[in-house]
Amino acid sequence: MEKTLGELAQLIGGRLQGDANIKIAGVANIAAAKVSDITFAVEPHIEEARTCQAAAVILPEGIEAFAKPVIIVENPRESFIKLVELFTPPLTIKREISDKASIGNNVIIGKNVAIMPFAVVDDNAVIGDDVILYPHTYVGQYARIGNETCLYSNVTVREFCEVGSNVIIHSSTVIGSDGFGFVTKKGKHIKVPQIGNVVVENDVEIGANAAVDRAAMGTTYIRTGTKIDNLVHIGHNCDIGENTLIVAQTGISGSTKVGHNVTFGGQVGTVGHIEIGANSVFAARSGIINNTPENVFYAGFPARPHSEWLRMTAASAHAPQMRKQIKEITRRLEKNKN
Amino acid sequence: MEKTLGELAQLIGGRLQGDANIKIAGVANIAAAKVSDITFAVEPHIEEARTCQAAAVILPEGIEAFAKPVIIVENPRESFIKLVELFTPPLTIKREISDKASIGNNVIIGKNVAIMPFAVVDDNAVIGDDVILYPHTYVGQYARIGNETCLYSNVTVREFCEVGSNVIIHSSTVIGSDGFGFVTKKGKHIKVPQIGNVVVENDVEIGANAAVDRAAMGTTYIRTGTKIDNLVHIGHNCDIGENTLIVAQTGISGSTKVGHNVTFGGQVGTVGHIEIGANSVFAARSGIINNTPENVFYAGFPARPHSEWLRMTAASAHAPQMRKQIKEITRRLEKNKN
Amino acid sequence: MEKTLGELAQLIGGRLQGDANIKIAGVANIAAAKVSDITFAVEPHIEEARTCQAAAVILPEGIEAFAKPVIIVENPRESFIKLVELFTPPLTIKREISDKASIGNNVIIGKNVAIMPFAVVDDNAVIGDDVILYPHTYVGQYARIGNETCLYSNVTVREFCEVGSNVIIHSSTVIGSDGFGFVTKKGKHIKVPQIGNVVVENDVEIGANAAVDRAAMGTTYIRTGTKIDNLVHIGHNCDIGENTLIVAQTGISGSTKVGHNVTFGGQVGTVGHIEIGANSVFAARSGIINNTPENVFYAGFPARPHSEWLRMTAASAHAPQMRKQIKEITRRLEKNKN
Repeated sequence: MEKTLGELAQLIGGRLQGDANIKIAGVANIAAAKVSDITFAVEPHIEEARTCQAAAVILPEGIEAFAKPVIIVENPRESFIKLVELFTPPLTIKREISDKASIGNNVIIGKNVAIMPFAVVDDNAVIGDDVILYPHTYVGQYARIGNETCLYSNVTVREFCEVGSNVIIHSSTVIGSDGFGFVTKKGKHIKVPQIGNVVVENDVEIGANAAVDRAAMGTTYIRTGTKIDNLVHIGHNCDIGENTLIVAQTGISGSTKVGHNVTFGGQVGTVGHIEIGANSVFAARSGIINNTPENVFYAGFPARPHSEWLRMTAASAHAPQMRKQIKEITRRLEKNKN
Repeated sequence: MEKTLGELAQLIGGRLQGDANIKIAGVANIAAAKVSDITFAVEPHIEEARTCQAAAVILPEGIEAFAKPVIIVENPRESFIKLVELFTPPLTIKREISDKASIGNNVIIGKNVAIMPFAVVDDNAVIGDDVILYPHTYVGQYARIGNETCLYSNVTVREFCEVGSNVIIHSSTVIGSDGFGFVTKKGKHIKVPQIGNVVVENDVEIGANAAVDRAAMGTTYIRTGTKIDNLVHIGHNCDIGENTLIVAQTGISGSTKVGHNVTFGGQVGTVGHIEIGANSVFAARSGIINNTPENVFYAGFPARPHSEWLRMTAASAHAPQMRKQIKEITRRLEKNKN
Repeated sequence: MEKTLGELAQLIGGRLQGDANIKIAGVANIAAAKVSDITFAVEPHIEEARTCQAAAVILPEGIEAFAKPVIIVENPRESFIKLVELFTPPLTIKREISDKASIGNNVIIGKNVAIMPFAVVDDNAVIGDDVILYPHTYVGQYARIGNETCLYSNVTVREFCEVGSNVIIHSSTVIGSDGFGFVTKKGKHIKVPQIGNVVVENDVEIGANAAVDRAAMGTTYIRTGTKIDNLVHIGHNCDIGENTLIVAQTGISGSTKVGHNVTFGGQVGTVGHIEIGANSVFAARSGIINNTPENVFYAGFPARPHSEWLRMTAASAHAPQMRKQIKEITRRLEKNKN
């Protein structure tokens, strides 16, 4: 596809400075742009853009003496995204149930769904309107998928689990695997049946290769609006509050209750059976081993106020020096004594 | 489904106090119970149960003046689980080889198996009696799956690997991926062929999205009765002893030998080529960098006796104060000197 | 299969000492070898081999008075691997497009490919020569897979992503899941469209259950020759340099640029938007929170020179003692004052 610079300026409602007939064949960021591409720049990248390969640059108001053809707009990034979408061929999502999919008995399927080859919807499951099931998704018996929800390839939603509306679950993520529950008798670990389910409420997004375990009894909740990154583990019977962010490789142990609007950085861990107050932030790698209040900014393992952790970490770096100083002081005191 | 309270009391062998004709439509825990549900309570939740929405409560002996209808039993939790099972519609596992599955050449398949749509059993594999293969499982060439074993959706068991009897492997877990082995020549990493396999012995359970690498040569073992949680990594040539527990997101590096009855908390890591003694416990986040003896309780990174780690962690929290104190002492000594 | 010891000696070009007619039925390492197996030994395992069960042993020159039949070779390990390959039945990879696979519209497929049952190649994808797609792989729309590349079962390569030649991707790994990008307005997290892609260059290997996110805009790069282990997370817009090694469970946050020939030990984490210099090594569990120079060996969290981290860790172990000493010194000073 090729567009003229004039056509692009019109499309994004910008002011063209330069030859409207220049042909543009693609979009790219400053570093990757080739001679037939258009790019965009905002501070502090304006200087870099002056010497890049691009045929033209989308700029904000007020940039002077720019040698290349430019389109001036209010928000260069937003305008650029429009052009990215223009130059990206659209995906074809066929709104149909593929004849290579497998649909069980007593399944209810809404309108306008896309159920792709080799997706499996097992007996008694319910699929809402406008749902997209990519290849190799498995929706278990009696599971329910809400409207406008998208399960990418290889996602599993086990039996009795419920996924709300407008949810996105990325590839190979598992909803409703058995919780890790055993009783140990004479050295052998006997499985405690995990007969609960998982409820993922509306507007949730869960990354790739994550695992949310079903409750031993009752329900593991991922509440409305929460966003979970790749490779996150949520133990059985957790209740993850609304609008929470959980960054990659974090693990929340079983029966932990997380308030709303909490942020967990990457690789955080928690013990089980604790309560984490709302509106809190836990820095990457925090290890949370107790209940925590609302509105805190914690870090470290065991997790503590972030400022305290910073002071402790800084002081600990001096531990070798401190050790020497103590030896020296002791030597002096011994000497004085004699 | 609806049952009368009388029917339920009879079913669980309990003593009914209240109207036997009350209709019960479901089961739920105290907080979630609706007016047509039955729930259960034990201390310290008895008070909470008095005011919950449930139509009736299963209680232990000796609770006085309870306003709601109750069923008195010896073990309320166990009785409740019976009712959960009663009210949960049973799964339909068709004992058949789906005509949508793919079965290779020279495959041996036992009796009473359930091989679901889009499962693949590749050439020369052996599937035992009573095995359940969920959709999108892949059993590689010459792999063997023992009796009464269940592979959930999207599980991979690569070629030549062996899974014992009464094993449960949760969704998207991979058994037999290549170990991470390279030799570096002139800055390039050349793959060392990983021609061994994995043997998962009997009575093992492995969580979702875990990965157990095949041996470079020989076998990676997961011994009898061991239970592994979600997102765990087991490197090539490891030998994980019997009845060991490995909690979520732990990584055991290659060629590490773990004794029987060891417990690894969550997010533990080990270096490779070490031996970890039997009957030990490693707290969450332990980082194990050396051989460890039997019967220890370790924590921290590098891992050390738990009590020592507690003292060290407690003292380290005082590092900023210690630094100030040392400065003050030094100042006093300097002053005294003058 | 059975071979005589004479046949095996000839095959590996070794010098036989013992009965050439002995029948060998298998290969195994010293500990696992049975009476009909052949094994190999090099120092320090020669003594152990003298008393093992094996029928014969492959040895280097210069071992005296060995009671069992032996084959003397220059490199026992290499000779042994030859025999392992001889006794291992070869896999049958059918070079064909299975009639149980699903191939979309406008797909271009090279020569000599193996596309196994239930693999899905979506519209407009391009598959190179000699490619192997295991069951349940998903190659998204407009995605490109280079020559001689192998995707194991349940791998996902999302739309517009590009995988180079001679690449191996292990089971359940996801290439091109959406990056974790949200803007928060009035407490709600609004998805930032992730419209970029992932480019995996040539000669890359990626382990099982890893996740590489697509760029928000532009491209996430995994450069030539890089090897990534199981359960690794690579955030959106990262650029991972050539010939880098990333050990299991490491997470690289978004927009981080890693130089070539870097080694990350297991369970390392980095913040986003940093630059990590070439030819560096980060010990297991390093937590990298700033740009780092080239040619360093770092450890710890926050990451610092490894030698410094060793000193700091060693000194911190004395923190309880140091605390006592400071108290004692203070007591003495107070006493002296009086």
